[in-house]
Amino acid sequence: MSDYFQDAATSSDEPALFLHVGRDAPALELSAGLRFQPLVGQGLMLNLVTFAPHTEAPMHSHSEEQLVYVLDGQVHFTAGGVERVMEAGDAVLIPPFVPHAARTTDAPCVELDIFSPPRQALVDLLGTH
Amino acid sequence: MSDYFQDAATSSDEPALFLHVGRDAPALELSAGLRFQPLVGQGLMLNLVTFAPHTEAPMHSHSEEQLVYVLDGQVHFTAGGVERVMEAGDAVLIPPFVPHAARTTDAPCVELDIFSPPRQALVDLLGTH
Repeated sequence: MSDYFQDAATSSDEPALFLHVGRDAPALELSAGLRFQPLVGQGLMLNLVTFAPHTEAPMHSHSEEQLVYVLDGQVHFTAGGVERVMEAGDAVLIPPFVPHAARTTDAPCVELDIFSPPRQALVDLLGTH
Repeated sequence: MSDYFQDAATSSDEPALFLHVGRDAPALELSAGLRFQPLVGQGLMLNLVTFAPHTEAPMHSHSEEQLVYVLDGQVHFTAGGVERVMEAGDAVLIPPFVPHAARTTDAPCVELDIFSPPRQALVDLLGTH
């Protein structure tokens, strides 16, 4: 099993946070048909994103690295000038500052967006919520 | 829609990486019944983890922050001294150095482990694969 399950030299008694993201994370309606449910960590952020059919996240870019993992449905995703139709189990790793956009057609989509570090614009949105 | 979709001041033409994690990511059999499929980014790492029934990831800790998101099945997860039965949509955010363990009983489990920064022990495992 290799050294993968060795303990670190020190241990923390900080609590872990258990939750059901869809039920427990705050929901932000970013625009009609686009719902965000973020969870903010120290060095990472998770965002459960739900697109209604025919909903768009316009082209944009940011300093934070992003990973998208599709849970359900279908999304037309463009990143680094390449467009792909993504479904459950598909992922895209987007380096910092690479422009990307997403849109649904007739199907909805549920995806996880993961950011490192936490995406500041979303931390700010949460603060004003 | 707030400033969420504003562009960053600079832009990168680095390529994005599209993949189907279950089909395309390298598979490591960590122990009988425990399969890892990692994807390494700059500041984050994704690991698609598949537990057969009656499989254990023993208690361990590490310096990297970890987020677990369950995709399918059921896992008995212990972190920070608390044990929960987790199913699809359940997550646990584990601060650095907090001991944690996971085990399946009669059901299998598929989960995403997300690390920030990339978990060095898994980067090392990939290097020897």
